[in-house]
Amino acid sequence: MSAWCCVNGRYGPIDEATVPINDRGFLFGDSVYEVFHVHDGRLWAAERHYRRLGRSLEAIGLNADLEAIRGWVDETLRQSRLAEAMVYLHVTRGVAPRNHAFPPDLKPTVVITVRPLVAMPEAERRRGVKAITVPEVRWRRRDIKSTNLLPNVLAKQQAIRAGAYEALFVEADGTVNEGSSTNVFLVRDGALHTPAKGPQILPGITRDLLVETAREQGYAVEERTVKLSELFEADEVFLSGTTTEALGVVEVDSRRIADGQVGLVTRGLFEAYSERVRQGRD
Amino acid sequence: MSAWCCVNGRYGPIDEATVPINDRGFLFGDSVYEVFHVHDGRLWAAERHYRRLGRSLEAIGLNADLEAIRGWVDETLRQSRLAEAMVYLHVTRGVAPRNHAFPPDLKPTVVITVRPLVAMPEAERRRGVKAITVPEVRWRRRDIKSTNLLPNVLAKQQAIRAGAYEALFVEADGTVNEGSSTNVFLVRDGALHTPAKGPQILPGITRDLLVETAREQGYAVEERTVKLSELFEADEVFLSGTTTEALGVVEVDSRRIADGQVGLVTRGLFEAYSERVRQGRD
Repeated sequence: MSAWCCVNGRYGPIDEATVPINDRGFLFGDSVYEVFHVHDGRLWAAERHYRRLGRSLEAIGLNADLEAIRGWVDETLRQSRLAEAMVYLHVTRGVAPRNHAFPPDLKPTVVITVRPLVAMPEAERRRGVKAITVPEVRWRRRDIKSTNLLPNVLAKQQAIRAGAYEALFVEADGTVNEGSSTNVFLVRDGALHTPAKGPQILPGITRDLLVETAREQGYAVEERTVKLSELFEADEVFLSGTTTEALGVVEVDSRRIADGQVGLVTRGLFEAYSERVRQGRD
Repeated sequence: MSAWCCVNGRYGPIDEATVPINDRGFLFGDSVYEVFHVHDGRLWAAERHYRRLGRSLEAIGLNADLEAIRGWVDETLRQSRLAEAMVYLHVTRGVAPRNHAFPPDLKPTVVITVRPLVAMPEAERRRGVKAITVPEVRWRRRDIKSTNLLPNVLAKQQAIRAGAYEALFVEADGTVNEGSSTNVFLVRDGALHTPAKGPQILPGITRDLLVETAREQGYAVEERTVKLSELFEADEVFLSGTTTEALGVVEVDSRRIADGQVGLVTRGLFEAYSERVRQGRD
């Protein structure tokens, strides 16, 4: 079986699943989400993802039954029979006639999909990827993992059109926030630097796990403001994300980073992270 | 008949209509919309709304068949048999497995709903409404009428909780942009002032019509940067919107505007605008 889903406890193939047009997730993007990596039939970093989901829900004042949701996620995954998969979990405020303000006691809509994990080809990962930069135009609460993703979509599309993998959002003063679906790191003189957490970036689960893994390996990691100019002077730049893991960036805005190869620290961290996933040490 | 809808040319009651969970409007808010006022069976300001829709679609790189959409809107309205109504039109990039980047040649999803117009009670309109202010946290392309409306939803809800009708988005430097679903005007010494159009506000159709109507009536209208402090020193403040029309604001952040009554200019403009709608002069 594959590409299975669940909508409020009803299971079936993704292609047949629907939500009402009056769902506030559809009308307003009044919803939050998570994407999980499933390894060996097990949700990787489940507690971290559910904690972040809880924070997103709280930030937008949405009460949902997290225990019921966890049960649905487990059952959808079981029915999919997939061992290496991606789970997408989307919780909306529910269904009501269109009005910005919402009635109390709406029943949230919970959509869960499970798809086979499509791993990046080895050769591509070894070669590294290109990134472009785009002006930071998003709303100021990027720490909430909401489905208001239009600017991210447009930025990613611009990257693809430019032959790049990712677009990095950069403030007018040169501050680098994150990619459209990834966090960003640089390596300089053997130390890692990545934008500090706050409203300006998503607190990435893989970001946190990579910071921990790097520190375990003896690297210094600074979480602070990162400027675009620093990327160009870095020894290595890499992206992090649930499916991206640690992915070397060899070019930004058509400028080569260091020698244009994926660096040793990035490669080592990717290996250590993969090993951590295999060990289930989340 | 009432509360009728159309999804890609299929007509039926709103409550039974759905979209696939893989619709990009649902997953990403990758969609734009319009709300029309129907008076006497006729779409008010139709050309203006379709022009704005065309601009929104172009801004996000979405190709849709506007002629087909117009046909569906007309037919949905006809089938609804409503003469005084609100038409909601929502165009998404279409259905595809979840990925930020989108494949070429997706077929857009078009959702149209027609609901009876619920007019604001006369007494409430005469009394005027309260507004609160909230920090401007939205993305920087508010001129695109996208469905990425979570900050608008949260602001409106905050207003309702505070016993107010609207929340005004105000920049850190005191610049007033607009309400969560309305534009804003102030009257001072017999002249109107309203934020100039640009990426920071939605180019409201009713806003434009009120500017034109006011000028026809001999008022000077300045479109420029408006500061919050000016609202408190204004003779009148009012909101504009498709269903709001021209609505007096008598209190902002619990501070009374002028004498706390809906002003003469606001009342006169509302009357002139209502007359203009009756005449069909759009």
